[in-house]
Amino acid sequence: MSDVNRGVIRSAEILAVGTEILMGQIVNTNAAYIARELRDLGISSHYQTVVGDNEGRIIEAIKVALERSDLLLITGGLGPTEDDISMESVAKALGLELELHEESWARIQAYFTLTGREVLESNKKQALMPVGQTVLPNDNGTAPGVFVETEYKGKIGYVVLLPGPPSENTLMFKSYLQGILKQKSYMSIQSRFIRLIGIGESMAEEKIRDLVHEQSDPTIAPYASEGEVVIRVTTASSRDEAALAAAELRLEDSISAIRERLGDYIYHIGEESLYEVVYMKMKEKGLTLGIAESCTAGLLSSRFGDIPGVSAVYRGTVVAYDNQVKMDLLGVQASTLEAKGAVSAEVAEEMARGARQALSSDYAIAITGTAGPDGGTAEKPVGTVYIAVAGPEGVSTTHYRISGNRARVRSNASLWACDLLRRRIDQIES
Amino acid sequence: MSDVNRGVIRSAEILAVGTEILMGQIVNTNAAYIARELRDLGISSHYQTVVGDNEGRIIEAIKVALERSDLLLITGGLGPTEDDISMESVAKALGLELELHEESWARIQAYFTLTGREVLESNKKQALMPVGQTVLPNDNGTAPGVFVETEYKGKIGYVVLLPGPPSENTLMFKSYLQGILKQKSYMSIQSRFIRLIGIGESMAEEKIRDLVHEQSDPTIAPYASEGEVVIRVTTASSRDEAALAAAELRLEDSISAIRERLGDYIYHIGEESLYEVVYMKMKEKGLTLGIAESCTAGLLSSRFGDIPGVSAVYRGTVVAYDNQVKMDLLGVQASTLEAKGAVSAEVAEEMARGARQALSSDYAIAITGTAGPDGGTAEKPVGTVYIAVAGPEGVSTTHYRISGNRARVRSNASLWACDLLRRRIDQIES
Repeated sequence: MSDVNRGVIRSAEILAVGTEILMGQIVNTNAAYIARELRDLGISSHYQTVVGDNEGRIIEAIKVALERSDLLLITGGLGPTEDDISMESVAKALGLELELHEESWARIQAYFTLTGREVLESNKKQALMPVGQTVLPNDNGTAPGVFVETEYKGKIGYVVLLPGPPSENTLMFKSYLQGILKQKSYMSIQSRFIRLIGIGESMAEEKIRDLVHEQSDPTIAPYASEGEVVIRVTTASSRDEAALAAAELRLEDSISAIRERLGDYIYHIGEESLYEVVYMKMKEKGLTLGIAESCTAGLLSSRFGDIPGVSAVYRGTVVAYDNQVKMDLLGVQASTLEAKGAVSAEVAEEMARGARQALSSDYAIAITGTAGPDGGTAEKPVGTVYIAVAGPEGVSTTHYRISGNRARVRSNASLWACDLLRRRIDQIES
Repeated sequence: MSDVNRGVIRSAEILAVGTEILMGQIVNTNAAYIARELRDLGISSHYQTVVGDNEGRIIEAIKVALERSDLLLITGGLGPTEDDISMESVAKALGLELELHEESWARIQAYFTLTGREVLESNKKQALMPVGQTVLPNDNGTAPGVFVETEYKGKIGYVVLLPGPPSENTLMFKSYLQGILKQKSYMSIQSRFIRLIGIGESMAEEKIRDLVHEQSDPTIAPYASEGEVVIRVTTASSRDEAALAAAELRLEDSISAIRERLGDYIYHIGEESLYEVVYMKMKEKGLTLGIAESCTAGLLSSRFGDIPGVSAVYRGTVVAYDNQVKMDLLGVQASTLEAKGAVSAEVAEEMARGARQALSSDYAIAITGTAGPDGGTAEKPVGTVYIAVAGPEGVSTTHYRISGNRARVRSNASLWACDLLRRRIDQIES
């Protein structure tokens, strides 16, 4: 019997193993990372599951997954401790034999030597691998992963084990698993992300409702993320050049149609964040940035700091949490603080001017506000934020009222600040 | 038939609905939040699942969940757009009728008026609620939630719907759901979290292996989170006073036993982060903090900024990403930068001294390093970090080699910096 599709990976699901996830001590970021990678490989993914370090439930989840999906990716439970039982559970579920994988054991010993720690007998457990399967090396830690090909109920299926710590998980996927999966998948799913700011999800959908309904390929799906709306446009095609080019055209047509309705709110088409978009624009124009923060306390700066190579643009920040620091390092006037209060348009403006000067940058953003939970007044309730942008053309200040808790006020204040800067940069003649 | 346990909630699971989670565009932080709340309510939670906005899969997941758990919490899919179908799917799965809930519709209209936006007909959909069930108001957005009591295969079960955006989800749980669940659950699960820093997971487990194995109540489970190890000690009891006191004693005994083995590495017992622990210690001693950051670019400051009331301790930060800023605002000597390079013990020390002076703080932490991916040299590879702590007693500097990618280097550098400060503060005579 020859079946060209036998063993092809079309669908996958993700199983995270870890009582710490069920207890809410850890957020399952691995699932999000793997999901994005699967999407880019054209492998559709319909389920994510979490179970604890419990053999019965792990084995049950493996069987359910292999019935409905071609590939099951398991994360976590590969640690050295005795409650880490993912490898044993997979072996039991699939009838595989485990034996010491000498190469992995040597790597584990070398890892401990390198980091100056003592190798323990318990670490040997991490080198027990299913016989005859593909071991995935761990370049960021000790536990290797594995890619298992199996037959379940007459169908070829694949099971992958990856370590739980995100830095190990991600690197192993990129370095050793992605290539294998690419060979075994055959469709390409292409998505574009249209990023909007300054409009709510329901209003955005209202404006493109007919497009969302009238067309099934590409699919158009708006969703809200904190502070912004993203519209995902997706189409599938085979991997040959002509099909990919046709898919590209379908996407472009949909994007044009959406742009006609929502052009004013679109800040970017792509997966880059607003921070990355602003960084790219400033780098292209050769502009530098300085920041002054009060209530956001470094959050805006840190978002820029996430970007590799940001030193081409970003010079530094003064977080002036205390009023004395506003005066000493940013030159805010005591009289302004006294007359207007730290949370005021005037102080935001002086902070922005002061940051631009102190940090010798072309542009400076300043944020001052009350993030809560305490400290609000009737006149300036929690969520009151003033953001100023200073540049060669002068300073402009904008007042916001942000609803929600401390984290949300800080996060949205950073985002709006970045958007104000984007709008200013866009006005510069290039 | 009278069954006192009929309708009691012992077990729960979480179903997140959203193609954006399956596509990896959104991390499922709601599940972690709800899991922690369930744990504190003494409701055990054995599964978390994610499916897309697909009626068939949502209904299947509801049925599977009601067979094995008393309570199913569904998050997401309550938005105004047409692909949001969680409410309709629940109604279909459980045979419920939906009708316009006038009070919710009035609240939605008021919300739009308050935020100055236009009410859309599509928002009306969000006020369609199952007849005769408990509506959960949304104080942070438009979509109300619902608490449904149902009978499935002869057993009473509960289904809850909560909105997807985390700020709405969390507030609704706290304000309207927690009280209901407390009445319907009856066990209390108590956990303590022993937080360690400076030791690996396998070494930590090695030292308490006998405890982990010899006792089943409380259970002892170590797990690694980025940069630190946490040991969870858990016991269950009924809610009466005597049982709670006995549970408390069991926990204390286990903690003492662990402390004997690992005392040197324990920085805290509780759920507070290292940052919160340092904040509390400094506040208690009346000490203030200033920060100088280079490669972490505001991340350390932002971690302190997450803490409500941190202004009692934290004065401000200079992020000196550029060398000129190091000189201008922190008084780092040009000659030191030239002779030793920006990533050096000497520059870290000058940054810390400069920050302490510029920010008029009792203590100052300074971080300088190479976070990568580029910029490493043979002598100072990516991951090289120098951290200095300056205080009235003088300055001390520590050198780290942190493995992993840019995010991990920055995150661990912040954590180690905070730990160095904690050790210094602990040395002060109180």
